[in-house]
Amino acid sequence: MGVLETVGGPADLKKLTNQQLTDLAAEIRDVLVETVSRTGGHLGPNLGMVEITLAMHRVFDSPRDRLVFDVGHQAYVHKLVTGRAPKFDTLRQQGGLSGYPSHAESEHDIIENSHASTALSYADGLAKAYRLNKEDRHVVALIGDGGLTGGMAWEALNNIAAAKDLKLVIIVNDNGRSYSDTVGGLATHLTTLRTNPRYEKVLDLIKKNLGRTPYVGPPMYEVLHGIKKGLKDMLAPQGMFEDLGLKYVGPVAGHDREAMEDALRSAKAFGGPVIVHAVTKKGFGYAAAEQDEEDNFHQVRPANKPRGWTDVFSDELIKIGHRRPDVVAVTAAMLHPTGLAAFADEFPDRTFDVGIAEQHAVTSAAGLAMGGLHPVVAIYATFLNRAFDQVLMDVALHKCGVTFALDRAGVTGDDGPSHNGMWDMSILQVVPGLRLAAPRDGKRVQELLNEAVEVDDAPTVLRYSKGEVGPDIEAIDRIGQLDVLKRTGDDVLLVGIGAMAATAMDVADRLEAHGFGVTVVDPRWVKPVAPELVELAEDFKLVATIEDNGRAGGCGSMIAQAVRDAGIETPIRDFGIPQEFLQHAKRAAVLQEIGLTGQELAREITELLSEHHGDALNAPDPAGDRPGNA
Amino acid sequence: MGVLETVGGPADLKKLTNQQLTDLAAEIRDVLVETVSRTGGHLGPNLGMVEITLAMHRVFDSPRDRLVFDVGHQAYVHKLVTGRAPKFDTLRQQGGLSGYPSHAESEHDIIENSHASTALSYADGLAKAYRLNKEDRHVVALIGDGGLTGGMAWEALNNIAAAKDLKLVIIVNDNGRSYSDTVGGLATHLTTLRTNPRYEKVLDLIKKNLGRTPYVGPPMYEVLHGIKKGLKDMLAPQGMFEDLGLKYVGPVAGHDREAMEDALRSAKAFGGPVIVHAVTKKGFGYAAAEQDEEDNFHQVRPANKPRGWTDVFSDELIKIGHRRPDVVAVTAAMLHPTGLAAFADEFPDRTFDVGIAEQHAVTSAAGLAMGGLHPVVAIYATFLNRAFDQVLMDVALHKCGVTFALDRAGVTGDDGPSHNGMWDMSILQVVPGLRLAAPRDGKRVQELLNEAVEVDDAPTVLRYSKGEVGPDIEAIDRIGQLDVLKRTGDDVLLVGIGAMAATAMDVADRLEAHGFGVTVVDPRWVKPVAPELVELAEDFKLVATIEDNGRAGGCGSMIAQAVRDAGIETPIRDFGIPQEFLQHAKRAAVLQEIGLTGQELAREITELLSEHHGDALNAPDPAGDRPGNA
Repeated sequence: MGVLETVGGPADLKKLTNQQLTDLAAEIRDVLVETVSRTGGHLGPNLGMVEITLAMHRVFDSPRDRLVFDVGHQAYVHKLVTGRAPKFDTLRQQGGLSGYPSHAESEHDIIENSHASTALSYADGLAKAYRLNKEDRHVVALIGDGGLTGGMAWEALNNIAAAKDLKLVIIVNDNGRSYSDTVGGLATHLTTLRTNPRYEKVLDLIKKNLGRTPYVGPPMYEVLHGIKKGLKDMLAPQGMFEDLGLKYVGPVAGHDREAMEDALRSAKAFGGPVIVHAVTKKGFGYAAAEQDEEDNFHQVRPANKPRGWTDVFSDELIKIGHRRPDVVAVTAAMLHPTGLAAFADEFPDRTFDVGIAEQHAVTSAAGLAMGGLHPVVAIYATFLNRAFDQVLMDVALHKCGVTFALDRAGVTGDDGPSHNGMWDMSILQVVPGLRLAAPRDGKRVQELLNEAVEVDDAPTVLRYSKGEVGPDIEAIDRIGQLDVLKRTGDDVLLVGIGAMAATAMDVADRLEAHGFGVTVVDPRWVKPVAPELVELAEDFKLVATIEDNGRAGGCGSMIAQAVRDAGIETPIRDFGIPQEFLQHAKRAAVLQEIGLTGQELAREITELLSEHHGDALNAPDPAGDRPGNA
Repeated sequence: MGVLETVGGPADLKKLTNQQLTDLAAEIRDVLVETVSRTGGHLGPNLGMVEITLAMHRVFDSPRDRLVFDVGHQAYVHKLVTGRAPKFDTLRQQGGLSGYPSHAESEHDIIENSHASTALSYADGLAKAYRLNKEDRHVVALIGDGGLTGGMAWEALNNIAAAKDLKLVIIVNDNGRSYSDTVGGLATHLTTLRTNPRYEKVLDLIKKNLGRTPYVGPPMYEVLHGIKKGLKDMLAPQGMFEDLGLKYVGPVAGHDREAMEDALRSAKAFGGPVIVHAVTKKGFGYAAAEQDEEDNFHQVRPANKPRGWTDVFSDELIKIGHRRPDVVAVTAAMLHPTGLAAFADEFPDRTFDVGIAEQHAVTSAAGLAMGGLHPVVAIYATFLNRAFDQVLMDVALHKCGVTFALDRAGVTGDDGPSHNGMWDMSILQVVPGLRLAAPRDGKRVQELLNEAVEVDDAPTVLRYSKGEVGPDIEAIDRIGQLDVLKRTGDDVLLVGIGAMAATAMDVADRLEAHGFGVTVVDPRWVKPVAPELVELAEDFKLVATIEDNGRAGGCGSMIAQAVRDAGIETPIRDFGIPQEFLQHAKRAAVLQEIGLTGQELAREITELLSEHHGDALNAPDPAGDRPGNA
């Protein structure tokens, strides 16, 4: 029987011997590698967190003390030692354990959110609430060195530093890389902290020698103190955090559990906010993951990788880059996942990785545009929410030609509610002047990206799905900006948006099989709503829009408004994602659950056609020779 | 003839003598005080910027070199010396000069955005574009110490520090307060920088004495260097910026123009990114503004202040605070403008001003809620955009009971496009579980605030207008959550949202005068859409919704969707702000311009009633005895 099986919760960890804890760490690494290689998920970050997590749970008393994990994908070890080891093989499976902390799973979990740099703010709020309520509880926030590059973390540090009496311990898990190498001045500073030799020896040396310096009157005390501080800064320049007013402990070897426990115990005893700087190696204990330069083990995908939407974007951008020397690329710590790595290889001077800093990514892109370049900002759809104000005020208000490539748009599935890109086509509708395209297939990614980078006086957005790109769907006609994909009649106009164009074609087949005449269009550019689409609506008995985006304020809603404004009374039904947080499952399973499948949509549309036009449509003619059919 | 009249542009400044420049500074202060006391606008920040601005324009060569002002409200002096002095008396008037920089006004202006902490990101992008294009141009960003508390500024500093060869000068205008006192560890650090004595003297002293220290072998060079650095840190601890890798110059007396010019010249010569730390006094040169503790002179309003929406909120929150010890208040550097100052006086331990840090404000509020408190986050509607992702992911996904009080919602007018609060009721519609209320009058602010703080498992939002609150509009009936304000018939259902309920009543009067039967309701809670409202829609010939918010994805759009989903075919017309950036003018003038007045709405609705029901309504019966009238 292994040690892990004896650990029902954090209290059990406190009873283990050093040898048992060492054995446990090895067991946990085996479980991580074995499980994640099967289920997919985040391997590297969790392998690096084993000893830190054990130390956290041994020194603090969760859930009384609160352990807050930034970007929950480093909380697998925490899950294993808080009673969830028996269910760990259900990781990221429908109905199984979430890939992120989940309050529904355990009272030991707090943040369910996978967006980075938030932990310190939560922790600040929690610690202030405990202080106000005079509860003697510690809050421990774990954040990566990458998470610290996000502006929110700075805002939190600035506030925490000013609150001297908060029982708050910040552990910086510093592995020198977030997804790829961590970016910026802070990273350099952390490296300095990490790589400098111990300063005590030199300090001793100088103390001996200064003893021989003749006394020259005041301000000798200050001078000596200054010398000491200078040496510390020279040899272990913790300056930045201490300048802010935060006590700094470190650097600590993050894979030395006992050293981590010592550091955490002294931080706990201090009573005010403390930063504990733990140095770790991503993938520690698993050679393949440790040596992985491209960070493929950050997140492991179980299957082979067929050609994806990202790949099409990546290849096309390089082509554009060769033709257009003014096109530059911007990413927020997502060089590889967004497909910009290849562009960076080709055009290193024209690629800017700004760290986990979406706000800066967007506004610096505005600056690049003002300087005469055309930036393409590649970002996950869900993370653009972080920079909504910057898109609106800094790019759109200033009429900057910036192209946003929103990857992982729509239902992404496995990674749970905070990874689904179901918000972008709603919130971007409010941005004046912004043009938004939703390519339906690989060919349209190419085509629309080329159109987008031609716009130099307004933001343009391309949004596309996660994963494999399906076969191209060729148009049979073009009306203005609209692609007509099918035209067999005018009972119903199906507007298929982005990847849902394929679903619309499926719906069309099913409706035709029931004798309805159907036209399918892909608007390509979904914002602004094309006047041709509005006019077209008048010719049908029903318009049904299908989008892989929340229904509130989505494309369907905007089309309905435009049709309404035009005084056209054709009934419209806008299908999309219900405005709820979706639980993790495979994309197909989620789409099934929310009714965004060909079968379910065809059923609902048939029902609507019957309701709205009871006389004519109650019993559709299976022969298909209805009036108006082509 | 004054000196200012001779200044047609920055080039003219370079020809002036020291005496003329001193005279000019005095003239400019007179113009500022005289103009702003008449037009309204930002006085204190601009009085503090006179010498810095003159120095910037004398050392750099705008528009070739780019001067980027963070939060443009400190750019009045810049306007005066870039050819706009003759028009300065039109400041903030319709058709006149904007209260912020404006590219349409001048080639010397870049950022038109009044949201803080963006300047360094723009500057980073601009400087990188110039570097890539091999253009020899400097970028100079001016940011306040308050602006540095915003996370974006940190993201930018982190990136700029890593770009050693950018021709980028950052001037920190440090007056120790943004709106009120600047908050946090950074402020303390800046104070340390500011208040330490010059270190050169001490450095000289120790150099002499160290000369007498016997040589003791290596690492003596490092030791000496360390001592020197230690002394600098002790006496002028620029550590934080230098730790990040940024060259630091300062502190410089910001009201000493010659000292500023010297500092800027050496920064310019350095060739890489430099921070110049200028210490100033807000309101400098105008005693009343200098000594103003409550920062009333930050922004000057010309008229007397009648009782406003903010006042009602402020008073009610204190009442709630007495009853509910768990209610706490959070603000992002807007203690006075949002009306929280009174709450802070009463409950200092329960008020958190986090600095210009909206993201942290929102997520730390989530933490406060998780810790058992009920935070009320008071913020301008337009600034909530900064924390959209945090509202969605950190508060709503985690089902935190946090109440947002959105002040200055809707058309605010004078401050131009980036101050109008016309986005909130659209983007918040996508947030699952969030409940949004739009009080129509003071009594409803009280009522709905009390209802909001009772919700402990979801975010609640109150949004209300800027300025004077009108008379209360009493309901004649209540249907579920809806207040019925008027009921004279069922031709048209007017849905008046928030302050537009008064407009709806005006519209109703006009329609009644034309013989239509009208019902006016105020939904009070506009999200989620009340089922009672959907049912009600069925009884009318037309539903018209009126909101002081962008039409895209707004309340009207959501009501239309709910009505559509219910299969109700009553035509709906959703009136709101066209989805464009609005130019500055008085609120009433803007509303007139965009057609959101009783007269214009009544005209449009009359037309619609005629179109939709031509037979019955073409010639409305002036006697008012139409079928269905009550």
